[in-house]
Amino acid sequence: MRVQSPFRTQKDSVAEKSGPVTAAIIMAPAKKNILERLDAGEVVIGDGGFVFALEKRGYVKAGPWTPEAAAEHPEAVRQLHREFLRAGSNVMQTFTFYASDDKLENRGNTQRFTGQQINEAACDLAREVANEGDALVAGGVSQTPSYLSCKSENDVKAIFKKQIDVFVQKSVDFLIAEYFEHVEEAEWAVQVLKTTGKPVAATLCIGPEGDLNGVSPGDCAVRLVKAGAQIVGINCHFDPDTCVKTVKMMKEGVEKAGLKAHYMTQPLAYHTPDCNRQGFIDLPEFPFSLEPRILSRWDMQKYAREAYNAGVRFIGGCCGFEPYHIRALAEELAPERGFLPAGSEKHGTWGSGLEMHTKPWVRARARRDYWEKLNPASGRPYCPSMSIPDGWGVTKGHADLMQQKEATSKDQLKALFDKASQGH
Amino acid sequence: MRVQSPFRTQKDSVAEKSGPVTAAIIMAPAKKNILERLDAGEVVIGDGGFVFALEKRGYVKAGPWTPEAAAEHPEAVRQLHREFLRAGSNVMQTFTFYASDDKLENRGNTQRFTGQQINEAACDLAREVANEGDALVAGGVSQTPSYLSCKSENDVKAIFKKQIDVFVQKSVDFLIAEYFEHVEEAEWAVQVLKTTGKPVAATLCIGPEGDLNGVSPGDCAVRLVKAGAQIVGINCHFDPDTCVKTVKMMKEGVEKAGLKAHYMTQPLAYHTPDCNRQGFIDLPEFPFSLEPRILSRWDMQKYAREAYNAGVRFIGGCCGFEPYHIRALAEELAPERGFLPAGSEKHGTWGSGLEMHTKPWVRARARRDYWEKLNPASGRPYCPSMSIPDGWGVTKGHADLMQQKEATSKDQLKALFDKASQGH
Amino acid sequence: MRVQSPFRTQKDSVAEKSGPVTAAIIMAPAKKNILERLDAGEVVIGDGGFVFALEKRGYVKAGPWTPEAAAEHPEAVRQLHREFLRAGSNVMQTFTFYASDDKLENRGNTQRFTGQQINEAACDLAREVANEGDALVAGGVSQTPSYLSCKSENDVKAIFKKQIDVFVQKSVDFLIAEYFEHVEEAEWAVQVLKTTGKPVAATLCIGPEGDLNGVSPGDCAVRLVKAGAQIVGINCHFDPDTCVKTVKMMKEGVEKAGLKAHYMTQPLAYHTPDCNRQGFIDLPEFPFSLEPRILSRWDMQKYAREAYNAGVRFIGGCCGFEPYHIRALAEELAPERGFLPAGSEKHGTWGSGLEMHTKPWVRARARRDYWEKLNPASGRPYCPSMSIPDGWGVTKGHADLMQQKEATSKDQLKALFDKASQGH
Amino acid sequence: MRVQSPFRTQKDSVAEKSGPVTAAIIMAPAKKNILERLDAGEVVIGDGGFVFALEKRGYVKAGPWTPEAAAEHPEAVRQLHREFLRAGSNVMQTFTFYASDDKLENRGNTQRFTGQQINEAACDLAREVANEGDALVAGGVSQTPSYLSCKSENDVKAIFKKQIDVFVQKSVDFLIAEYFEHVEEAEWAVQVLKTTGKPVAATLCIGPEGDLNGVSPGDCAVRLVKAGAQIVGINCHFDPDTCVKTVKMMKEGVEKAGLKAHYMTQPLAYHTPDCNRQGFIDLPEFPFSLEPRILSRWDMQKYAREAYNAGVRFIGGCCGFEPYHIRALAEELAPERGFLPAGSEKHGTWGSGLEMHTKPWVRARARRDYWEKLNPASGRPYCPSMSIPDGWGVTKGHADLMQQKEATSKDQLKALFDKASQGH
Repeated sequence: MRVQSPFRTQKDSVAEKSGPVTAAIIMAPAKKNILERLDAGEVVIGDGGFVFALEKRGYVKAGPWTPEAAAEHPEAVRQLHREFLRAGSNVMQTFTFYASDDKLENRGNTQRFTGQQINEAACDLAREVANEGDALVAGGVSQTPSYLSCKSENDVKAIFKKQIDVFVQKSVDFLIAEYFEHVEEAEWAVQVLKTTGKPVAATLCIGPEGDLNGVSPGDCAVRLVKAGAQIVGINCHFDPDTCVKTVKMMKEGVEKAGLKAHYMTQPLAYHTPDCNRQGFIDLPEFPFSLEPRILSRWDMQKYAREAYNAGVRFIGGCCGFEPYHIRALAEELAPERGFLPAGSEKHGTWGSGLEMHTKPWVRARARRDYWEKLNPASGRPYCPSMSIPDGWGVTKGHADLMQQKEATSKDQLKALFDKASQGH
Repeated sequence: MRVQSPFRTQKDSVAEKSGPVTAAIIMAPAKKNILERLDAGEVVIGDGGFVFALEKRGYVKAGPWTPEAAAEHPEAVRQLHREFLRAGSNVMQTFTFYASDDKLENRGNTQRFTGQQINEAACDLAREVANEGDALVAGGVSQTPSYLSCKSENDVKAIFKKQIDVFVQKSVDFLIAEYFEHVEEAEWAVQVLKTTGKPVAATLCIGPEGDLNGVSPGDCAVRLVKAGAQIVGINCHFDPDTCVKTVKMMKEGVEKAGLKAHYMTQPLAYHTPDCNRQGFIDLPEFPFSLEPRILSRWDMQKYAREAYNAGVRFIGGCCGFEPYHIRALAEELAPERGFLPAGSEKHGTWGSGLEMHTKPWVRARARRDYWEKLNPASGRPYCPSMSIPDGWGVTKGHADLMQQKEATSKDQLKALFDKASQGH
Repeated sequence: MRVQSPFRTQKDSVAEKSGPVTAAIIMAPAKKNILERLDAGEVVIGDGGFVFALEKRGYVKAGPWTPEAAAEHPEAVRQLHREFLRAGSNVMQTFTFYASDDKLENRGNTQRFTGQQINEAACDLAREVANEGDALVAGGVSQTPSYLSCKSENDVKAIFKKQIDVFVQKSVDFLIAEYFEHVEEAEWAVQVLKTTGKPVAATLCIGPEGDLNGVSPGDCAVRLVKAGAQIVGINCHFDPDTCVKTVKMMKEGVEKAGLKAHYMTQPLAYHTPDCNRQGFIDLPEFPFSLEPRILSRWDMQKYAREAYNAGVRFIGGCCGFEPYHIRALAEELAPERGFLPAGSEKHGTWGSGLEMHTKPWVRARARRDYWEKLNPASGRPYCPSMSIPDGWGVTKGHADLMQQKEATSKDQLKALFDKASQGH
Repeated sequence: MRVQSPFRTQKDSVAEKSGPVTAAIIMAPAKKNILERLDAGEVVIGDGGFVFALEKRGYVKAGPWTPEAAAEHPEAVRQLHREFLRAGSNVMQTFTFYASDDKLENRGNTQRFTGQQINEAACDLAREVANEGDALVAGGVSQTPSYLSCKSENDVKAIFKKQIDVFVQKSVDFLIAEYFEHVEEAEWAVQVLKTTGKPVAATLCIGPEGDLNGVSPGDCAVRLVKAGAQIVGINCHFDPDTCVKTVKMMKEGVEKAGLKAHYMTQPLAYHTPDCNRQGFIDLPEFPFSLEPRILSRWDMQKYAREAYNAGVRFIGGCCGFEPYHIRALAEELAPERGFLPAGSEKHGTWGSGLEMHTKPWVRARARRDYWEKLNPASGRPYCPSMSIPDGWGVTKGHADLMQQKEATSKDQLKALFDKASQGH
């Protein structure tokens, strides 16, 4: 049975104040750190992906996917943090995805802000909203163009170091190395993050076939734990089914090696049964026609339950997640956690809010059984249900993947268009 | 060819100030009213639907669908207005959908705020953001439980009057009577709205089969124009294809009757090829599993072009629209309008932002031809492409549709579940 | 309840004899003619389409679709007649589709047999098998290239006359003018057929939008009845749903005109929800990739019931029908007819034969409820559920439709390929 | 380039004679045996499945699936043989599937003919038609209820022995042990077949996951070769893609073990991307709603090419195959074989027959490019593209699979219906 519990409401009055709030006063007494929570067996709800959500809101550009909005449009980033908090997130991850200097300069991308400015602004926003509720701040780093372009270990580590310095200065609560396609680069990141003494989580964006060099999920996990990560898992690139399956393989690997770790999943909010090793990047619909694949809130409840049953306790999302998706995770696991998120004030469990609908046949849908069994139609009779992914089959080391600062030239584009046309 | 024009940027610095801005100072000199714009042949971009967008963000409850967030969580409503403005909207519609007193008390719905408080707060938020750019404020009223429950013309008009009083006091720029299933109730609304002397727009949520009493779109339009509406059209309940088709029938009717009007469409952002007369309410996926039906930005560009070609000049959206959908309308019609919206700062036309993507095969997608021809997969091989709508076939006057203040009882629910089960 | 009745078995021993059987001896005493049956309210089960069934068996060439197999491979035609008889058909239609001299010479088609030889052989085969059971022989004529090429009424009627002469000489029981896209040509055919004094049925291959000149189904039916047809209806080009819907419109037209007729339907065995006026010819899958659209036996039972409920009493099929489809019609209407067809010896009603299956989970499917509710998967996740038909929008009178004797030249083909490519 | 070669025509005059033809006279000089053909690198085209094809024609009962039609309706069986021969088959397999005495008595199945009568009649029919062309006769045995019910090796072998005795007496050219779910039973069959001194082929109805006890395809193949089979492969239960994939695994196993064999595939003509280990039996559509999954002729050409490329040289079909499917295999491999089958007299390669079509837009489809790229629509927008198979997960040894002579009782059926309902 679902536990009936009081809402843990955020202080709504705070939400209207825009001035900086002194973190120490509010957070100091109450909050357990990430490892204390996980060691105690608590479920930690992550947040959703910022780049996709803010792209749809008009603040992130698809293609470069860089997070300058933290400095440029702080009101938009703050509001999204707040919505995830309200939906039940215990972690405010700094909006610093791809905020490394090499990425900010890649392929003709020009920003009005330096990497340091963006990283600092992102930390401030995450802290401000974290303090409005029971959330921790996690500083995040992700894969670099430098690695893809075969730069040295030292060069790549220096990139991470610059971001970490800001995180330490801004006193984030823990660190996440996320979105790595090659376990080697993730190990390097973990090694840099460990120098801070803060707890470290590390996630790869891989599926059951392993990383782009073919290292299995189990072996990847072992290497990350040995490098110092206390929490390991999967983020992005695949749907919840695939991510939970892959984390299970990681867990088996870690346990077989006699090691210990906590596990996390931050999958896509898109169904990807047709993906190959590279994940949703290779789907022809990426990134502008993924709409039909978006998971419903009921799909999310199923994901939360399966992740929980697989032993995952840090359960969040990535690209495609909207606040209501995170709320669905928190609602599904309310019996285990003992409370509903603040956002459930505006949501009847399993559709019960429909009891108030004007039309009687919609009131008749106010039941779990209805929504669990429904196979939703696409409304697109001229479209298929699966796609054939691009399969260029290249990864780090291939000339096609060398990154450049200058914008892609017309000749380069034409060569790509021709190559793509032949492939179809 | 696409017109290359400077962004009409909003004042970003304003966005960070939360204090109320004196409307008169900023708006007075610059803005043409809605009829001046339409008479001049300008394209007016509407906004998207607030209840669905805010439901996903955690501020509106599906079922009652009431807009108390205007008073309760103003930061969330303000941010959504701002995103639509940035996406290109010329109209900030007050978030007053279902904000009539009879609706706020319906079926056990309990609010912390009075109807007047909600209407006032909504006007202030719309005005505040409208003043950040070139947008007008439109006060909105919609259909009432009183009409559905067969109350008298006087009773129903009194409901509208209470909302209008706030709109007049708050000096909105024009009025919209929207979301009416019965043309009779819409006529009553228009008659009340006309008493203000402000321009009046009126939209029905009907398809080619006409209103729920079988009055044809052409006849509906004629009646609305005769009642005093200067702008008539369709909103909600159906997808863009269907709405444009229905507005064409309205236009034919108006022209055949020797009348004149401007036309508007504010369709769903959901594909609904399988709807019957009642629209998406009757689809089994309504309202919690509509995800696979969401239109892409390219679908929206097609809609904008088709609406434009049909002679519609007030082009916006309703349930399901996110800011990037509105931006797509503004981008498609940029050649006609002469400029791109501020939000296009973060969006390459027809996918050109992908030229900056890390992977070469994604850069190969940076072209119009690619996105226009793509038939996106659903990623749901176990789901169909169309659904059979519920077809209870009842409307105003039927006992099933009498509204009540008390919450739906368990016995009532059980009766509904049984009735629904037999129907399948 | 389903009537349990003895099989009306055919004389199996006859089946092995290949010599010609004297028709007079066997048929004379027993058989009521077609109008006696229909006037008495009996259900007459038609047969299925021969050109498609024999194309799959290797005896008809797709493209010309001519019936030379009647003379060339009589064993194959005889066997198909026999299977339809066994499945419950009361009508053996002569395999004379497109057996007019102008069609046999069209577009470079070369046959080893004259039109007269083919028509005579077809009559003999139909009579031989009809005599093995309770079936009548119907001589069939269909639309001509001459009409499409704008030949005179006299020229077109002369074409029909040549086929009719054979039918009279071979003493067929009644005549069917079928597969007409233009009601005018069908009227001409009926006028010629009436000169024989035999009962005449006439079917058009049109849908609810009417014939290719836009004459409504109701008006078409009235014209056919006035020309002398006692039975009118629809064959080919559309699925059962569409054909039944169109025949209803015919019936309404005839009744409104104060006339009387019997009604027949011989639809496709392919689902065609996506067809436009020209029917399945225009679907991109025609004729070689229609497999996913094939109706199941359960779809056919639904068709039989709906046709019956609409007042149709001559119920058969056209392209795509296999013997088991006809058997499904006879099984569905067994309660009304009082007996099951001989072929039901090898078929358990509503899947009851599965009670004998080896696997218990397949035995669990031996029930009507299971098969009626099943929505069968396509097994084709990369394919859509509907297609966009070609829409060249030309008909009789357009230069593109002038027929020629010589084979299509390479230049003509190239022009067609180019035109088609642009259309996509 | 496609080899242009004369048809190898069958003697059409023979087809009309129904009397028995003395085999020795016609076959003796001309025909190479099966191993001579395969050793020489020739492509041998198999036939299609008789039980499904004859079920649709009205001569086999779904559920028991027994072949009494060989004795009961020889004209129908003969005609199907002839159509496959004409389509290009080099092998006339005796219609003796499930013609073992234990199967003929199973679950209340009652026949008018003994097993011996059926086996003898089937041999005569196969020989008669084989003599009309360049085909060999193969005697076939398949899995037994006795094995499933855990009878002893001796008991099961005695079952096979009874059938083999007929095959020897009737001088079939070689033997096929087909449709085994457990490699052990197939080994027993091969051991019995080897006692005749005739060439032996053995196929399992398994997929990449191996037999129902989990023995891998590679290990299965090795065991069959060691038992004496010269040809090994896969038949039934899965689509061509899956079967070719599984045979590749068999080939790898055999080669790894240092053994040699020829390979054969006789897959379904149904797409089964959604199958689990048990194959299409477990799909909810089996056996009465498989229509949407039927392969087109173009799918078949793709299969023939892929099988050929995988090293398979005995290429045929199983359930769902119609004569035109076999013809497609023969057409695809005509360049390798040097000739087209007789049935291609009525089929233009890659749609070229459409050059003779009346409508110009259909003539525009007379090209390979068109048909190869087309993704055919299902015409079923309310149906999904994949199904979830039943997964009872039981096999030989489980009480549910014990076979019985008596008909399934009502109580047994009710228990099954209940069990199935819970599973959904």
